[in-house]
Amino acid sequence: MNISILGTGFIARFYAETLVAQRRKDVVNMVYGRSPDKTKKFAEDYNVPNYTSNLKESISHPDVDAVIIALPNNMHLEAVLACAEAKKPVLCTKPLGRNGKEALAMLQAAEKAGIFAGYLEDLCYTPKFLKSLSSINNGAIGRVIWTKSRESHPGPHSDWFWDKEKAGGGAIIDLGCHCVEISRNFIGKDIRPVEVMCWADTCMHPIDAEDNAVGLVRYENGAIGQFEVSWSFRGGMDLRDEVMGTEGTIWTNNFLRTGFEMFSTGSGDAYVAEKSESNSGWLFPVGDEVHELGYNHMFTDMFDAIENSKQPLETFYDGYIVNAIIDAAYQSARTKKWEPVIIEDWRGTTEVNQHHAGTSYDENYYLIKEEILPSGEKKIILKNKKTGAIEKR
Amino acid sequence: MNISILGTGFIARFYAETLVAQRRKDVVNMVYGRSPDKTKKFAEDYNVPNYTSNLKESISHPDVDAVIIALPNNMHLEAVLACAEAKKPVLCTKPLGRNGKEALAMLQAAEKAGIFAGYLEDLCYTPKFLKSLSSINNGAIGRVIWTKSRESHPGPHSDWFWDKEKAGGGAIIDLGCHCVEISRNFIGKDIRPVEVMCWADTCMHPIDAEDNAVGLVRYENGAIGQFEVSWSFRGGMDLRDEVMGTEGTIWTNNFLRTGFEMFSTGSGDAYVAEKSESNSGWLFPVGDEVHELGYNHMFTDMFDAIENSKQPLETFYDGYIVNAIIDAAYQSARTKKWEPVIIEDWRGTTEVNQHHAGTSYDENYYLIKEEILPSGEKKIILKNKKTGAIEKR
Amino acid sequence: MNISILGTGFIARFYAETLVAQRRKDVVNMVYGRSPDKTKKFAEDYNVPNYTSNLKESISHPDVDAVIIALPNNMHLEAVLACAEAKKPVLCTKPLGRNGKEALAMLQAAEKAGIFAGYLEDLCYTPKFLKSLSSINNGAIGRVIWTKSRESHPGPHSDWFWDKEKAGGGAIIDLGCHCVEISRNFIGKDIRPVEVMCWADTCMHPIDAEDNAVGLVRYENGAIGQFEVSWSFRGGMDLRDEVMGTEGTIWTNNFLRTGFEMFSTGSGDAYVAEKSESNSGWLFPVGDEVHELGYNHMFTDMFDAIENSKQPLETFYDGYIVNAIIDAAYQSARTKKWEPVIIEDWRGTTEVNQHHAGTSYDENYYLIKEEILPSGEKKIILKNKKTGAIEKR
Amino acid sequence: MNISILGTGFIARFYAETLVAQRRKDVVNMVYGRSPDKTKKFAEDYNVPNYTSNLKESISHPDVDAVIIALPNNMHLEAVLACAEAKKPVLCTKPLGRNGKEALAMLQAAEKAGIFAGYLEDLCYTPKFLKSLSSINNGAIGRVIWTKSRESHPGPHSDWFWDKEKAGGGAIIDLGCHCVEISRNFIGKDIRPVEVMCWADTCMHPIDAEDNAVGLVRYENGAIGQFEVSWSFRGGMDLRDEVMGTEGTIWTNNFLRTGFEMFSTGSGDAYVAEKSESNSGWLFPVGDEVHELGYNHMFTDMFDAIENSKQPLETFYDGYIVNAIIDAAYQSARTKKWEPVIIEDWRGTTEVNQHHAGTSYDENYYLIKEEILPSGEKKIILKNKKTGAIEKR
Repeated sequence: MNISILGTGFIARFYAETLVAQRRKDVVNMVYGRSPDKTKKFAEDYNVPNYTSNLKESISHPDVDAVIIALPNNMHLEAVLACAEAKKPVLCTKPLGRNGKEALAMLQAAEKAGIFAGYLEDLCYTPKFLKSLSSINNGAIGRVIWTKSRESHPGPHSDWFWDKEKAGGGAIIDLGCHCVEISRNFIGKDIRPVEVMCWADTCMHPIDAEDNAVGLVRYENGAIGQFEVSWSFRGGMDLRDEVMGTEGTIWTNNFLRTGFEMFSTGSGDAYVAEKSESNSGWLFPVGDEVHELGYNHMFTDMFDAIENSKQPLETFYDGYIVNAIIDAAYQSARTKKWEPVIIEDWRGTTEVNQHHAGTSYDENYYLIKEEILPSGEKKIILKNKKTGAIEKR
Repeated sequence: MNISILGTGFIARFYAETLVAQRRKDVVNMVYGRSPDKTKKFAEDYNVPNYTSNLKESISHPDVDAVIIALPNNMHLEAVLACAEAKKPVLCTKPLGRNGKEALAMLQAAEKAGIFAGYLEDLCYTPKFLKSLSSINNGAIGRVIWTKSRESHPGPHSDWFWDKEKAGGGAIIDLGCHCVEISRNFIGKDIRPVEVMCWADTCMHPIDAEDNAVGLVRYENGAIGQFEVSWSFRGGMDLRDEVMGTEGTIWTNNFLRTGFEMFSTGSGDAYVAEKSESNSGWLFPVGDEVHELGYNHMFTDMFDAIENSKQPLETFYDGYIVNAIIDAAYQSARTKKWEPVIIEDWRGTTEVNQHHAGTSYDENYYLIKEEILPSGEKKIILKNKKTGAIEKR
Repeated sequence: MNISILGTGFIARFYAETLVAQRRKDVVNMVYGRSPDKTKKFAEDYNVPNYTSNLKESISHPDVDAVIIALPNNMHLEAVLACAEAKKPVLCTKPLGRNGKEALAMLQAAEKAGIFAGYLEDLCYTPKFLKSLSSINNGAIGRVIWTKSRESHPGPHSDWFWDKEKAGGGAIIDLGCHCVEISRNFIGKDIRPVEVMCWADTCMHPIDAEDNAVGLVRYENGAIGQFEVSWSFRGGMDLRDEVMGTEGTIWTNNFLRTGFEMFSTGSGDAYVAEKSESNSGWLFPVGDEVHELGYNHMFTDMFDAIENSKQPLETFYDGYIVNAIIDAAYQSARTKKWEPVIIEDWRGTTEVNQHHAGTSYDENYYLIKEEILPSGEKKIILKNKKTGAIEKR
Repeated sequence: MNISILGTGFIARFYAETLVAQRRKDVVNMVYGRSPDKTKKFAEDYNVPNYTSNLKESISHPDVDAVIIALPNNMHLEAVLACAEAKKPVLCTKPLGRNGKEALAMLQAAEKAGIFAGYLEDLCYTPKFLKSLSSINNGAIGRVIWTKSRESHPGPHSDWFWDKEKAGGGAIIDLGCHCVEISRNFIGKDIRPVEVMCWADTCMHPIDAEDNAVGLVRYENGAIGQFEVSWSFRGGMDLRDEVMGTEGTIWTNNFLRTGFEMFSTGSGDAYVAEKSESNSGWLFPVGDEVHELGYNHMFTDMFDAIENSKQPLETFYDGYIVNAIIDAAYQSARTKKWEPVIIEDWRGTTEVNQHHAGTSYDENYYLIKEEILPSGEKKIILKNKKTGAIEKR
C-alpha cells in the first residue's frame, strides 16, 4: 500500500520509522509538510520519493492509496475534509479533534464520503494492551469495576502543544485521550460513558492550559474509568494501566519498569537514553520504542482492515466518543461537579446489566466474605436479607 | 512502661505482637475484652498478667501507665472518655472517630483532661514512609504537586467493619483514613485541606456502605492528595503511595512488590502466606509484617513521646483533621460536587505560598521547556510575557 | 524473498508466525516435514503453497530464495549440506551443531559453497539485547568485567530434546548456547574465549543428559561470561541477563517481569498464559512473544543481509565458536577442572588489552577508593606503589 | 543485658544503632576502641557510660554481661580468647576467622571455656531470609536443587578490608561468608559441604586480593550453593538470593529493588541516600537499614538464647564451616579444579538422601514431562525403563 504522511514532526517521524522497518511491504511514497526544508529532509531520511507543501496535492496524488494525518490538532479537520473530498482512506493521529464538535464533523465527513477512517490510538495497540484486552474478554478477571490509565512525562516536545488554542487544551487533550480510550476498551466500547468528574490545574508551567489533571468517567454499568495525566512528572515517561475486576487484577507498565535496567556513571560520551532525563545513574531504557508504543500492531491492523474492507479496532467513531468525554471533563473542571457526556449518536448498547446484587448464601442470607484464617479455621460473614444485620459464623 | 490493651481482635493482636517482640522494655500488663473467653486466650497468648471485661477497671488499674484502644470504631469515644476521666495517656487506633464530630469530642476530652493522646496511624510510620517524608522535607523532590495513596484488599476480617453504623462507613473510613493522612504528611500538615471531591460506590458486596472509592483532597496551596480505596481488590493487599514533586518523584509499595517473590506448586502442606489469596503460584510474602506496617516505629515514637513529654508524630488533632476530610468526602459522594472541609479549630498556617508563576527566562519571556534532542541540539520553548504567544528557539 | 522452512514443530511454527505477521513482504512458500500430516497442517495454517516430505526438493525448488532450518539438532548437518549443494542461502536454528565438529563441518561446507549462512540466535536480537549491546559499545558501562546469562524453564516441549544423542546433550546445548553467545557479544566477539569451568548434573528428571548446569567462560582479556541453565525451574520461563562493567551495570529480564502482571482467580474458562505453569494466581504474561524473543529483528537482519550481500549479526562462525565453548563445558563437567576452548580457526584479535593496573593517584600511590561519607567528609583509600601498604586519608 | 562492644568502626556503629533503638531493654554499657578519640566519640554518640582502650578491661568489667566483637578480621581470635578467659558470652561479627584454622581455634576456645558463642551472620536474620527459610522447611518449594546468593557493591568503607593480610582475603572472605551461610541454611545445615569450585580475579582495583569471584559449593545430597561477590559493582549495594526447588522458586532482593523508588533532579541540597552512588536520578533508598540487614532479629535471637541457655540460629560452629568452605574456594581459585572442603569435626548427618531417581509413570516407564498444550491437548514424554528410549504420547 502506498502511503502519504501529512506532517514532518515528532509523531510523523515515529510513524515513518515504523513503516520503513521490519521489511514491511507498505511504502511511504509521499510526505506533506508546511516547511519545505523540513519536508525535504524528511523525504531524504525515509527515502520518500515525493514531497510537497501543498496539502491537497499530497492527498490526491494518484499513487497515494491511503493518507496518514500526523499534523497538529488544529489541522486535523481540514486534512480530513480534504481526504473525504479526494475519497482517500484516512488515518488520523490522536486526539481526533480539539473537541467533540470537530471530531463529529470529521466523522460525518468520512462517513458521507464513504471512506475508511481509522483512529491512530497507538496505546490501544501495544502488545500488553492487546493481551490484557483479550484476557478481559475471556473472563480472566471477571466483571471490570474500575480501570485506571496514567500517562505523564515532563511535557511535549513541540511548541504547538503548549498553545491552548492550537492543541485544544493541555495535558488532558494530549495525554488523556489515550487514557480515556484505554479504559473504554477495558470496560467495553458498547457501554455508554455517562458522566465525568475532573480536576485540572496549572501546577508548574507558565501556560494557560492545565498541566495536571485527574478525571473519573462513570459508565452506564457503574464501572469507573480513571485517568491521570501530567506534564510535570519527573523521571521519564510514566505509562501505566491498572484494571480491577471482580475476579482479578491487571497491572501494566509500558515504559519505566519493563525489565530493562541500566546504571551508568555517565563516562560513556555517546549514550543517550530516550525520554530519560539524564544519561547517568539508574536508567530504564526501552528496547524498541515503536513496538512498545503499539505502532507496529496499529498500522498492521489499519492496513489489513483497508485491504479487507473491515473496520479497524479504532475508528473515527471511537475518536469522537473520546472527544465527547474530554469535553465533559473540561466542563467538570470548570463547574466543579459531575458533568454529563453529550453524545449525538450513541451506537452502543442501551440495555445495561446493573451491578450484581451480591451472592446469595442461602434463603435468608447474602454472603459478604468467606475466608480461611491462619489457624485453618473458616470464617463466614453474612448479611441477613430481611434485617440487613451483619453476622459472623 | 506498663500498657493496657483494650480489645482482643485482629488489630489488638498485631499491637501485642509488636510489643512483646524484639526485646522491648515495655510490658503489656492488662487486656480488656468484651468476651471473657477471647480475653483470657489473649492474655495467655501474650503473657499478659491481668485481664478483665470491665472497661473502666482495665484503664484505672494502678499498674497501667498507658492505654491502647484497639476496639471497633463505635467504641473509641467511650474508651477515650474513660481514659480522660482516669487521666491516663491514651493511644487510639485509626480512624479516630466515625466522623469529625466524634473525633472532635475525643480531642477536646483529652485536651481538657491534659492527657497524652496519640493517634495510631501506623502507615505514617513505615520505614519507607518515614524516609520518604524526610526526603521531601530535605527538598529532594521539590514542591509537592500531587500525592496518591492507595490501599485495597479483598475486604476486612472482622464482621463489624461491614456494618455501616458500627464502622461509620465502608472502605473510605476503614482505608481512606490511612491514605488521607499519608498525603497530608507529604503535602505538609501545616497546609489547610480546603475541599474534597469523591466518588464512592458499592460495586461487589451486598452491603450498605461503599466498597470502592476515589477521592481528591485539594489543599490551600493547590496541592492535591488523592486516595484510592477498595474492598474488592483481588491479589492480596495493595498498599502503594506516589508523590509528584516539581523536582522529583516517589513511588513506594509496602506489600505486594517488595523484593520477595516465591513460586510454589503448592505441594508443601503447611505453608500459608499472609493476606495472599492462595498458597500456590507466584506469591509475594512479607518478611516481617508488623515492621512493614510501621508498628515498631509507631510505638517507639509514642512511648518516647510520653516519657519525654513531647508530641508524637501523629496526634488526636491529626485524627480529627482526617475525620473532617472524610466527612467532606462522604458529603461529596452524595452531592456529586466538591465539598468544603469543615474544621472547627484550624491550627496550621493561614499564609500559604501560591503556585509559582513559572520560571522567567528573560525580561520578555517565561521558560516553558528546555530539552536536549537526540541530535544533541538544544530546544527551548518560551512564552511571551506580554502576548502570551508560544515560541520555539 | 521466498522462504522454505524445514521443520513443522514448535520452533518452525514460531518462525512462521513471525514471517506471516506485521505485513512483512517475505513469503513462506515451501515447508518440509517428515510427517506428511503435520506438514500439510502446517501449510494450511500458514498459507504455504508448497509442502513436501522430500528434504532436497524443499530446498532446490526454483521458487525458494532462502532456507530456514528448524529441525532437531541431529538433522542440521544434513540439511546444511543439502543447502550447500543447492547453493541456497541458509539460516540455521540454534545450536548450530551438536558439537564443535559438526558445526565446523557446516561452516566449512557453507563457505566452500559460497552461500550466505546465518545463525538464528534469536536472543541476540531481542530489543533489550540490541540496545544493551549498543550501550556497551558506546561506553555507557565502561569495560565489561563479567556477564551472566540465565535461561531456565521446566523443560522443552518436544521429545527429541530429552534424547541426549539426538540433541547432543541436555540443558547446556539447548539453553546454554543462547547464554554463551549473549555473553560473547557483550564481552566482544573479537576476544578469544580461552577456557571453561562447568558444573552439570541431572537433578530432577529421569534422563541421561544434564538438566542443570552453571559454567564460567574465561576470555583472553580476563572477562568472565557466566551461564546458568535449568530444565527444572518452576514458575515459567526465566530469561535474564546481567552485565557488570567498570562504569555501570545492565540487568534485563525478557519474560517473567516485564511490566505486565495479572492476578486471576481462574474463573475465566478460556484464558491460558504462555509458558505459565497455571492460569490462576499472579501471572506474568508476555505481550508479543515473537517480538520479545527477538524473531522480528532477527529475520529482518538476516534477509536484509542476504539482499545487500552483507554478513548478518550472527553467522555460522559464531555458531561454531558457541559449540566449541560448549564442548569445553561438557569436558570440564567430566574432568572437574578448567578446560581449554579448542578453536580450529580463530578469526578475532590476538592482541588483547590486559586488565588495567589500577588508577594512579599520584607518584607514590594508587587510588583504591574515594568516597563521600554520610557526614559529608571525603575519604580516600590508597595503596603505596612501593610497599603495597594500604593507607587511609 | 549489659553489652560491651569491641570496636568503633562502621559495623560497630550499626550494631550500636540497632541496640539503642526501638526501646530495647539491653544496654550498651562499655565500648572498646584502639583510638581513644574515636572511642570517646562513640561513647558519647550512643550514651555508653564506660569506654576504654584496654581490651581485657572492656571484657572483664563486672557490669558486662556479654561481648560483641566488631573488630577487623585479624583481631577476632585474640578477642575471642580474651572472652573465653573471662568466661563471658561472646558474639563475633562475620567472618569468624580469616581462615578455617583461626575459626577452629575460636570454636574450641569457646567450647572449652563453656561460654555462649554466637556468630553475627546478620543476613541469615533478615525478615525475607527468615520467612524464606521457614517456607523451605515447610516444603513450599520441594527439594532444594540450587541456591544462589549474590552480594556486590563498589567496595568496603574501611581501609583494613583492602589489606589481604588483615582481612584474610578480598571479596570472598568479606562478602562470600554471607553468601555461603545463606545457601547452607537453605540447603540444610545438616548436609555436608563436599567440594568447591571457584573463580577469583582482581578485575578493577590495584590490590593484591580478589575483587570479584564466583564459586560453586557442592553438598553431599547433590545440591549446589552458588556465591557471587564483587567489589566493583556499580549502582549501589546488590544483595539478592535465589533458590530453585523441585516444587518452587524463591527470589529475594534486600536492597536495590524493595518497592521504594525515588527520582530526584538533585536540587535538594541535603539529601543523601545510603550506599547510593549519587543523590540524583532514580534512587532506591532503604527504609530502615538495620532492619533490612537483619540486625534487629539477630540480636533478639542472640540475647534470648543467652537468657534461655539455648543455641542461637548462628553459632561459632557455623562460622567455622563457612571458613572451611572459603578455604576450599581460595584453594580452587589457585588450582583451577574442584577442591574438597576439609572439616575437622563434622557434626551434621552422614546419611544423605541421594537425588530422586525420577518419577515412575508405570511399570515400564519413567515420566519426564507432562504438559497441557495451548490446544488443550495433554502431552506426555516418557523414558522406557529398559531401553532408555524417549517416547511421546
